[in-house]
Amino acid sequence: MTISVAVAGATGYAGGEILRLLLSHPAYHSGDLRIGALTGNSQVGLRVAEIMPHLPPLSGRVISETTPAELAKHDVVFLALPHGHSAGLAEQLGDQVTIIDCAADFRLSKESDWAAYYGGNYAGQWPYGMPEIPGHRSKLKGANRVAVPGCFPTAITLGALPAIACELVESGLSVIAVTGVSGAGKKATVAQLGAETMGNVKAYKPGGTHRHTPEIVQNLQPFSHDEVSVSFTPVLAPMPRGILATITAGLKGGIGKQQVRTAFEEFYADEPFCLVLPEGQQPETQNVVGTNMVHIQAHVDENSHRLIITAALDNLCKGTAGAAVQCMNLSVGWTETLGLPLAAVAP
Amino acid sequence: MTISVAVAGATGYAGGEILRLLLSHPAYHSGDLRIGALTGNSQVGLRVAEIMPHLPPLSGRVISETTPAELAKHDVVFLALPHGHSAGLAEQLGDQVTIIDCAADFRLSKESDWAAYYGGNYAGQWPYGMPEIPGHRSKLKGANRVAVPGCFPTAITLGALPAIACELVESGLSVIAVTGVSGAGKKATVAQLGAETMGNVKAYKPGGTHRHTPEIVQNLQPFSHDEVSVSFTPVLAPMPRGILATITAGLKGGIGKQQVRTAFEEFYADEPFCLVLPEGQQPETQNVVGTNMVHIQAHVDENSHRLIITAALDNLCKGTAGAAVQCMNLSVGWTETLGLPLAAVAP
Amino acid sequence: MTISVAVAGATGYAGGEILRLLLSHPAYHSGDLRIGALTGNSQVGLRVAEIMPHLPPLSGRVISETTPAELAKHDVVFLALPHGHSAGLAEQLGDQVTIIDCAADFRLSKESDWAAYYGGNYAGQWPYGMPEIPGHRSKLKGANRVAVPGCFPTAITLGALPAIACELVESGLSVIAVTGVSGAGKKATVAQLGAETMGNVKAYKPGGTHRHTPEIVQNLQPFSHDEVSVSFTPVLAPMPRGILATITAGLKGGIGKQQVRTAFEEFYADEPFCLVLPEGQQPETQNVVGTNMVHIQAHVDENSHRLIITAALDNLCKGTAGAAVQCMNLSVGWTETLGLPLAAVAP
Amino acid sequence: MTISVAVAGATGYAGGEILRLLLSHPAYHSGDLRIGALTGNSQVGLRVAEIMPHLPPLSGRVISETTPAELAKHDVVFLALPHGHSAGLAEQLGDQVTIIDCAADFRLSKESDWAAYYGGNYAGQWPYGMPEIPGHRSKLKGANRVAVPGCFPTAITLGALPAIACELVESGLSVIAVTGVSGAGKKATVAQLGAETMGNVKAYKPGGTHRHTPEIVQNLQPFSHDEVSVSFTPVLAPMPRGILATITAGLKGGIGKQQVRTAFEEFYADEPFCLVLPEGQQPETQNVVGTNMVHIQAHVDENSHRLIITAALDNLCKGTAGAAVQCMNLSVGWTETLGLPLAAVAP
Repeated sequence: MTISVAVAGATGYAGGEILRLLLSHPAYHSGDLRIGALTGNSQVGLRVAEIMPHLPPLSGRVISETTPAELAKHDVVFLALPHGHSAGLAEQLGDQVTIIDCAADFRLSKESDWAAYYGGNYAGQWPYGMPEIPGHRSKLKGANRVAVPGCFPTAITLGALPAIACELVESGLSVIAVTGVSGAGKKATVAQLGAETMGNVKAYKPGGTHRHTPEIVQNLQPFSHDEVSVSFTPVLAPMPRGILATITAGLKGGIGKQQVRTAFEEFYADEPFCLVLPEGQQPETQNVVGTNMVHIQAHVDENSHRLIITAALDNLCKGTAGAAVQCMNLSVGWTETLGLPLAAVAP
Repeated sequence: MTISVAVAGATGYAGGEILRLLLSHPAYHSGDLRIGALTGNSQVGLRVAEIMPHLPPLSGRVISETTPAELAKHDVVFLALPHGHSAGLAEQLGDQVTIIDCAADFRLSKESDWAAYYGGNYAGQWPYGMPEIPGHRSKLKGANRVAVPGCFPTAITLGALPAIACELVESGLSVIAVTGVSGAGKKATVAQLGAETMGNVKAYKPGGTHRHTPEIVQNLQPFSHDEVSVSFTPVLAPMPRGILATITAGLKGGIGKQQVRTAFEEFYADEPFCLVLPEGQQPETQNVVGTNMVHIQAHVDENSHRLIITAALDNLCKGTAGAAVQCMNLSVGWTETLGLPLAAVAP
Repeated sequence: MTISVAVAGATGYAGGEILRLLLSHPAYHSGDLRIGALTGNSQVGLRVAEIMPHLPPLSGRVISETTPAELAKHDVVFLALPHGHSAGLAEQLGDQVTIIDCAADFRLSKESDWAAYYGGNYAGQWPYGMPEIPGHRSKLKGANRVAVPGCFPTAITLGALPAIACELVESGLSVIAVTGVSGAGKKATVAQLGAETMGNVKAYKPGGTHRHTPEIVQNLQPFSHDEVSVSFTPVLAPMPRGILATITAGLKGGIGKQQVRTAFEEFYADEPFCLVLPEGQQPETQNVVGTNMVHIQAHVDENSHRLIITAALDNLCKGTAGAAVQCMNLSVGWTETLGLPLAAVAP
Repeated sequence: MTISVAVAGATGYAGGEILRLLLSHPAYHSGDLRIGALTGNSQVGLRVAEIMPHLPPLSGRVISETTPAELAKHDVVFLALPHGHSAGLAEQLGDQVTIIDCAADFRLSKESDWAAYYGGNYAGQWPYGMPEIPGHRSKLKGANRVAVPGCFPTAITLGALPAIACELVESGLSVIAVTGVSGAGKKATVAQLGAETMGNVKAYKPGGTHRHTPEIVQNLQPFSHDEVSVSFTPVLAPMPRGILATITAGLKGGIGKQQVRTAFEEFYADEPFCLVLPEGQQPETQNVVGTNMVHIQAHVDENSHRLIITAALDNLCKGTAGAAVQCMNLSVGWTETLGLPLAAVAP
C-alpha cells in the first residue's frame, strides 16, 4: 500500500525540511510513500523551482491552496503552519487522515498555560511527538494525531530528562539556549535581516517569557517529585541552523561524576537519536546539522555544585521536521528511524 | 556480492564527506557495500567518535595507518590524501583494487602542466571522473582507476562547457570563483582561522596561479576550435561549504538570449546532477550544500556583449566526495545516482 | 563658527554610519560641528536609543520628520534617502544649505542612463564626490551640492582607474564584485533574511543590469580613448560589510608586471585613502571595515594576458558615509581626511 | 611632554587592537603620545604592512624583538603576551616605566587560585584595571603597574556587580557567556579553523574549568556578605568579536522589577562605559563592536524567581585593549575616556 502524504505550509522552513527528508526516505524510493499536495498561502500557484530551488526533484510541483478538501485526499498530512489553524483543519479532515502537527496548538496539557503564553481558544492535547520521553513511544505508534514538540523543548527536555528522572539535580533549572536564525521562520523582519544577525549575538524573550517555557516544564514535571521550574533564555547566534542548550541546576547531595555519566548513558542506551558524548567532549551544532540526532554531555561543576548539561540539535530537523517524520514512521508502522539522517553535513 | 570500501585519509574533510555519503548509500543499507578500513596519519589509533563526531554510526571505528597492505584488502579504495601519494599506493595495490583518487596526481594529461603547477614526478593520467563531459561516462563505467576532478574545475568546467561546446562564446574565459573555507582542508594555519575568515572576503592565487587552472583548460580545450585560455581567480568567502563560479566570455556574433538558453538546457537535459535554472533565477550555494548537484545559469549581457555564466556546487560533495561516490557507482556498475543527495540542507 | 549638520534618513544604515563618523570627528569634539536634526520617516518620534543602540552618545535624540523646514535650519544636510527625493528637497532648501546627497539622483551625466536604469524625472548632475578621480577634488572644495558615489562604483572606479588612465588594459572590463549584506539596506525582505544569506553566496543582477553600471562607465570613459564597456555582476556574500571588486581586462601589448606596479603606485601616491598593497598581498575586506580606505592590488596574468585588479572597501564607509564626510570636509574647508578612520576594526 | 608607548606582543589580536585605538587617540594626533617599539616574537623583522594590513598608518614599521632594553626606552609599555612573561619583564623594566599588562599574571590575589588555574610561579597582584568596580579607580590613577582584566571577567563582573552589591540576588551565579572566535587568539589550531567555527556553536571548558572563573569570584566577593560561587561556561559562536554574558541567580525575597531597574541605573549612572539599556531592550554584540562600552540589561523572571542579567562587550576592545588604554589614560593623568570609541561599527 502506498501512503500518500501532504504538506500544508510547504513553503516555510519546516515544510521545506519535511520535504527534504521525505525525498530521501526509503519508502519514497520504494514507492511506499507518495508526496502529494504541497499547499501554501501567499505563494499559491508558484512552482517549487521558484521558491525552494534546493529541492530539485520537486521542481515542477505547484503550490496549491491549503484547504481541507485538498488535504483530505491523503493518508498523512503534515501541518507546518503558524499556530491557530490546526484545530479547525483537524476537525474537517476526519479521523481517517493522520495529522502530524508541527504547530503548538495541541502540545500543552493545561489550558492555563495556553492562555498565558498563546491566548485564544485552547484546542486540547494530542499525543506528544517525543518518543524518547519514557511512556510516549507506545502512544505514538499508530497514532492518527501527533503534536510535534517545539525545537527548544526538544533540546532542553532531552538534555535535562536524565538529570531530573534520575534525581541528580534540584528541580530549578536555569537554561540558556543558543539558536540559529532559521528558528524565526521565513518571515521578513528588520531584526532578522542578515545585516542584523551576522556578527551579532543577543538574548531575546529572557527569563521564561518565551512560549516554549511551559512545554519544557510539562515534559519534565512528571519525572520529578518536586515542582520543576525553568528559567529559560534563548540567545540568537549567527548561524542558519542549530540549537545548543546549556542547562544548569544544583546537584543533589552525594551525586558525583561517575553517577552522572552512568545515569545519562543508561538513560539513552537504546535511543537511536540521543547520543551521550564521550567524557570531555562537548556537543557542537555542526555535528548535528541535517540530522535527527541530539548530542548530549553532562559536566559536574564541583566548585559550585551544579550540573552543566549541554545538548545540541538541528532546530529544523530533530527540532521540527525530523521529529515529524519520526512520528510519521511510528504512526504508519514503519521502522522509527527510517529516512532520518544520523550523519551530519559538517563542516 | 558485498563491495568492501576503504577510505585513506578518512580524517580530512573529503574523507569525512565520503563517509557521510556512504552511510546513506542504499548499498550500505542493503549490505552490498561494507565500510572497511578508515586510515589516517597523525590520528592513527583514535576513534571516529573523537575526531569526527558528526558520523555517529562509525563512532567506534578506529583510525588505522595508511598502508598498502591494509588498503589492499578492499574492493574499492578512496584516496583522500594530499597529492604525491597516489602513484606509489596504486602500484602496490594492484589492478584488482579499484582506486578512486581525490588528489590531483592523475588528473593532468600534460607533464608540462604538472611540472609547472605541482612539480615532482609526473604520475600519468587516469580516467577523469567527470561523467558529464561528453565521452567520459563510458570510460568511467567499470574503470578500476579514477582521478576525481578538483572542486573549482568541476564548477567551472560544467558551467562553461555548453558555452564552449556550442560555440556561444570566444575562447578567452575570465573566471572569478567564490569558495567556502573548507576548500582549504583541515590544516591549522593562521590565515584560515575563524577570526581571519569570518566577516572577510579576499582573493588569493589570482589570475591563473591556482593549480586548478590547467585542469580547467584541459577539460574545455577538446570542445573548442580555438585555443582556450582561462584567467581564474579564486575568492575566499565566509561560509563553510560551497563554490559559486562566475564565468564571463565575449559572446560570438549573432548569439542571442534564446540560443544560449536552448543550448544550456539541451546540453544538460539528461544529466541528473546538472540543473539549468529557470530564466532569471541565480544559483545559490545554499541550494546545493550537501548535494551532488551543480546549479547553472547563463545571462546575456547585451551592453558588453558578454555571457555571464554562474555555477554553484558544494565543494566537498559534487566538488570532491560526491563525484568520488558517483565514480564508484559507475565503476562498480551500480546506478550512477545512488546515494547522492539532490535536495540540499537549506537554509 | 559652528557648522550645524542634519542627517535626513538617519535611521538607515548609511545614516547611522554618517552619525558614527560624525561622533568621532575632531570638529564635533572641538565644538566646530554640531549634530542637529536626525530625520526619518516611519520611525519619527522614536528615540535613537530604541533604533540605533550602537550610538549611545545620541541615545536621547528623537527622530523628527524629514521636512525642508527642519533641514533648512542647518549648514550641511546629508541626504541618506532612497533616490527620487533629492531634487525636491534641494530646491526647497536653497543654496545657502550645503547638500551631500548619498542617493543616485544627481550622479549621472546622461539623462538616457537615468531613464534606462532608474526611470522617472532626470534631476541633473552635481559635483561627483570622488575626489580621487583626477580633476574632481577642486570641484568639491567649497561645493554646496555633492552627489556621493555608489558603493560599487567607488570600488570599481578606484580599482580600474590607473589601468584605464595609464593605458595598461583594453577598455572592455569584466567585473565581479562581492558585497556584504548591508548593501541592501535596512529593509525587510525574505531574500535578505539571515537564514537566506548566512552560509550562502549568490550573484544577482548579473551582467550590467545593476544600476551602478552606467556610473562606473561614466567615471572611466573620460580617461580612455576607446569606448569603455563594463560587464558588472555583483555577488552577495555572508558578511555584514565590505566589497571586494575583482576587475579583469585584457592587457595592452607590451605591458608587463613592473609597468603595472609603477602605474598603480604612482597614481595613488598622494591619495590618503587609496592604498596599493605590497606585491603579492591581496586586499581583504576585514582590513578596511570601519575605515575610509580602499586597498588595491593589480596582478598580471601572463598566461591569459589579462590584468586582475582587486579592490576592497567598506560599502557603508568609503562606499557611502565615509565619502560623504570626506566631501563635507572639502565643502566646509576642513582638512579632507578629518574624522575618517584609516585603521580597521579587524579581525 | 610626549609620552612614548611600546607594545610588546604587537602582532597578536590584543596588540593590534591597542594600536588601532592609539592611532585614533587624540594624544597621538596632538603629538602628546608617540607610538614607539612594536615588538614580537616569530615575526621579528617583518613590516606591519605584511602582518597587520588593517593598520596603514603603521605600514612601514618593523617588528622588533621583545627585550627589556628595547621596551625600557618608553614611558608606557603594553604587554600583550601570553601569561608567564610579565613578572620577569617588569623586574627588568624598573619603576619608571609604566606597565599595562594584558596577561593574567598579576590579576589574582590568591596564590592558590593561581596554582589551581594557571600553575607555575605566582607573581603577585597589581592594581586591577577595572575602574568601574567601586574603589578601583583611585588606585589606577597614576599607577605604574596595571593588570588588565580578562574579557569574560569584565562582562560578567560588570553585569553581576549591581545585583550582588545591591543585594538583589543570592550569591550563587550561573553564567553562560557566548564569545566570538578572536578570543582564542591568533594561533593556528584545527579547532579554531573557519571551517570548524562558522555555522557552529559549542560550549567549552564548562562549569568553572575556565581560567577566568576565580577572577570573577574575586571581583564580586568583596561586595557580598555570603560566599560567592560562579558556575561559568563559555560558548563559542561564529562571529569574530563580541561577548554576550547571561548571568542568572535566584532573586532575594521581596526584590521586584522596579528595584532591580533602579539599582542598575543608579549603579552605573556616572560610568561612561556602562550603559543600562532601556527596559525591554536586550544587549547585542554588534552594538558594542569596536567600542569600549558594556551594554547591560536585567530582567526579572517572576516564575522562577531568578534575575537574568545580560551584558555585551567587545572582547578585544573593552574586554582587553580598550580597558588597557582606559588604564593608560588613568595612569598618565589624561581624561579617562580619551580615544575610546562609544559608537559601534554596526551593522
